[in-house]
Amino acid sequence: MAQRIDHIGVAVADLEAALRLYRDLLGLPLEKVEEVPDQKLISYHLGIGESRIELLVPTSPDSVIARYLEKRGAGIHHVALAVEDVDAERARLVAEGLVPIGEPSIGAEGKRIQFFHPRSTGGVLLEICG
Amino acid sequence: MAQRIDHIGVAVADLEAALRLYRDLLGLPLEKVEEVPDQKLISYHLGIGESRIELLVPTSPDSVIARYLEKRGAGIHHVALAVEDVDAERARLVAEGLVPIGEPSIGAEGKRIQFFHPRSTGGVLLEICG
Repeated sequence: MAQRIDHIGVAVADLEAALRLYRDLLGLPLEKVEEVPDQKLISYHLGIGESRIELLVPTSPDSVIARYLEKRGAGIHHVALAVEDVDAERARLVAEGLVPIGEPSIGAEGKRIQFFHPRSTGGVLLEICG
Repeated sequence: MAQRIDHIGVAVADLEAALRLYRDLLGLPLEKVEEVPDQKLISYHLGIGESRIELLVPTSPDSVIARYLEKRGAGIHHVALAVEDVDAERARLVAEGLVPIGEPSIGAEGKRIQFFHPRSTGGVLLEICG
């Protein structure tokens, strides 16, 4: 069962413009800047209520975010929902037909995360984390 | 200043599959079904924490959602952030260079809403509402 929107991941081509929009104009606090070497990106966490907006900036041309920017352009990349137990939810959702992308891994802030393929979720790149 | 994620709007091609995912598998309560004649769509509101996921289903081939589905396929359509005063925020953001899509209007639940063009927001179709 999903408890809240943990974050929205935004693929960013122009970091200065994105920080100006979310931090300076919309007033969201920049709470953390985190490099995620596995995914070859730097993530800028902006707090909003019980959620975050994460600005995802590739650090290499073969980052999944760099490939996303090439293919679809800048914009919303994924939505992450907080759950109690990622492994139990993963098993339940896979049994119901959702297609996982690999095994559970460790994402931002050391949280356990699992992505599901958009072809099994009506076009939404869905993450669960907890 | 943005206070929380009000909702994420999802363009839906297969309503049954989307309700199965968000309501039945992820356990989100279906709080409201609302027809928005101006936008030629029906919106299914699923509560999650302080936010909602809104499933947007076109009621006509010339709905903006029908056109979005044709062009980009099903998936996340927009993000709406709650603000105190939509008109004041609109004026402030436009003065800072954001490009509004038309004038403020009345959206779901009678809230005042304003969309901004993705070309002025790093590819994100951004709504403010309050």
